Amino acid sequence: MDIDSFFSANIKAALKNDPPGEWMPALPENCIRLSSGYPDPALVPADQIKKAVASLIEEERDLPLHYLGSPKVPKLKQQIKGRLSERGIHVSEEEVLITSGACQAIDLIARIIIDDQTIVAVESPTYMEALEIFQNYTKHFITIPVDEHGLDTKRLEEVLEERRRKGLILPRILYTIPTFQNPTGTTMALERRKHVLELASEYNFLILEDDAYGELYFREQSIPLKAMDHESRVLYVGSLSKVVAPGMRIGWVTAAPEFITALDWFKKDIGHPFSQATMASFLERNDLKQRLPTLREAYKKKCDVLLSALEQYMPESVTWYVPEGGYFVWARVPGIDTSDLLTESLEEGVSFVPGKYFFKEQEEGTEFLRLSFSYADQKEMEEGIEKLSKVIKEKLS
Amino acid sequence: MDIDSFFSANIKAALKNDPPGEWMPALPENCIRLSSGYPDPALVPADQIKKAVASLIEEERDLPLHYLGSPKVPKLKQQIKGRLSERGIHVSEEEVLITSGACQAIDLIARIIIDDQTIVAVESPTYMEALEIFQNYTKHFITIPVDEHGLDTKRLEEVLEERRRKGLILPRILYTIPTFQNPTGTTMALERRKHVLELASEYNFLILEDDAYGELYFREQSIPLKAMDHESRVLYVGSLSKVVAPGMRIGWVTAAPEFITALDWFKKDIGHPFSQATMASFLERNDLKQRLPTLREAYKKKCDVLLSALEQYMPESVTWYVPEGGYFVWARVPGIDTSDLLTESLEEGVSFVPGKYFFKEQEEGTEFLRLSFSYADQKEMEEGIEKLSKVIKEKLS
Repeated sequence: MDIDSFFSANIKAALKNDPPGEWMPALPENCIRLSSGYPDPALVPADQIKKAVASLIEEERDLPLHYLGSPKVPKLKQQIKGRLSERGIHVSEEEVLITSGACQAIDLIARIIIDDQTIVAVESPTYMEALEIFQNYTKHFITIPVDEHGLDTKRLEEVLEERRRKGLILPRILYTIPTFQNPTGTTMALERRKHVLELASEYNFLILEDDAYGELYFREQSIPLKAMDHESRVLYVGSLSKVVAPGMRIGWVTAAPEFITALDWFKKDIGHPFSQATMASFLERNDLKQRLPTLREAYKKKCDVLLSALEQYMPESVTWYVPEGGYFVWARVPGIDTSDLLTESLEEGVSFVPGKYFFKEQEEGTEFLRLSFSYADQKEMEEGIEKLSKVIKEKLS
Repeated sequence: MDIDSFFSANIKAALKNDPPGEWMPALPENCIRLSSGYPDPALVPADQIKKAVASLIEEERDLPLHYLGSPKVPKLKQQIKGRLSERGIHVSEEEVLITSGACQAIDLIARIIIDDQTIVAVESPTYMEALEIFQNYTKHFITIPVDEHGLDTKRLEEVLEERRRKGLILPRILYTIPTFQNPTGTTMALERRKHVLELASEYNFLILEDDAYGELYFREQSIPLKAMDHESRVLYVGSLSKVVAPGMRIGWVTAAPEFITALDWFKKDIGHPFSQATMASFLERNDLKQRLPTLREAYKKKCDVLLSALEQYMPESVTWYVPEGGYFVWARVPGIDTSDLLTESLEEGVSFVPGKYFFKEQEEGTEFLRLSFSYADQKEMEEGIEKLSKVIKEKLS
């Protein structure tokens, strides 16, 4: 076998699915970015991070720049345990693993739990990066719809019942973002949360709960599944990307200790001491408990601006869910393929994410789009929605 | 199945080998660390990194703190391409992937190349972290001895010939650290480098070349395998851990573009923008080409101190290789189990790494130990070797 055939044979063997297809086109300059799930630039604490680094290095010199040794690294774990207890999740040291953002956490869990025979249950639509990660390990999925009250657990139960009746393999894990879901912005109702935990117990599966947005509520906090988990079935993933800065890449997993140990064997990259110590130094100097109310208020205001603009400009046939927190509004534009719409919208200088990317079967998402109210400022959002509405109206007429 | 059995069944399924056994004991405070493969604290540019962060944030504000967007991130790739060409490796953008240190690079390669049927050829002894990574994916290894001229390629050829003759599966990949090997400090001779490339071609395997120490030569530069690779068989891994700071976690892979694309699918964590942009900002302000001669001279001096102390204090039966670069000296203490020796040595306040950790079959390494001249200062090294020699002499008498 020559080296080219060798390559393609081996790379193919490693991938459980075809390589991902086309992705979002490049955004033109000065585009109004209603696509970006980034924090508001004005809310990214750049100066405070600069100061955190300066004070870290003055205090610890070379320590945070080695593989191990900065006292700030274990400190960060303590700080995250504190955050978790604010979410009603009380855990010990051995139940937490710091990761490079939520994505590494999800990938590590996939490596432990998913082989090419595993069935993964996912919400439909769901976070596209997570979907891509799972697709590196298996091609077997069960997709369960999400509505304005979150995951349709009744539908999940029907699917599980049917599979059991037919003697089919049951899913080993369910991936869910119960609070301010990406992309729909909706939140799983409390009864459904209880129901999904009962189902996990009855049908013996694990739940991967992604709580990236949980702290950014507008009115009230939702109880994470993990806080109601009495069987260690929930692997809880969180991150500081949405409330501090994604570029720092600080996330975590909370799970049973034997699970954390196994994840750690696969992690192997000794963490990111500089990034972790910088974050610990930042959190020492900037209390998240004081920072979060400001963020909640700011994003609520921005969400209201986006919703008002939608009300004002969108044709009547366009509908959307009203989120209670998070970063996103999910809209439906009946009769329009939102991938085509994006091409025209970009010509007007406005971006969004076409719905198809969030679906395992992309054709189910053609009429949907995800708008982000986190990144663009008030004026841009108003202008962006006005322009996008104009394009939609032209296409509808 | 209850949740505990479910856990243990699934975690076991994910691991191809038994979990790693006991590891180095915790070091007592104020221990003279001849075990640490860390850069010299005095050579870690802490203040320059502080300044790099300050100037980065003044210049780019929130950009390096988002998922994507800092112009410094592509800049870093250019800078690394420049480093590579200093090593005689001339590649295009699509042939480079930035990773979180060399370990992530090795792990990503393992994920693409190694399944549970794959045979991996490794040097014996070899870098223990790499060995642990490979053991997450397969239990099939071929171990080839290393001597003072590096990997014994004649022995490799014999093993390959024999396997072919017997119709046994051939290894898919060889992992080697040809220059200033970890742990032996030895360097593969040029004829052996050519030989191993010929063997790769004849027996159709890939070479994972780990060049973490290649820039830290005392007299002259060795030519990397990658610089002589005309068949894209070499996956070359490098890092800035040894020449800037490991805590920044900046490494890379150089390989054929289709390979880089596949590695990137598994990487998925969008890089570490803050860390990468900080490193780019550091390298803009601190020319590595000027920094490296200082490092080479400093480590050469430190190596000489360690070697002189060995000459002065060690009993005659103890032998070691004289390195031409890197961080390590590999010593043999006939008749002594270096794990037991470590216990006593730690009581005297001196650490080293027992040889067994660097061997697939740990019992082959009982008489060896790895000493690092990178971390401890001159006085500590002299004192450390004097104390260690005393313990050895006592054990021998």
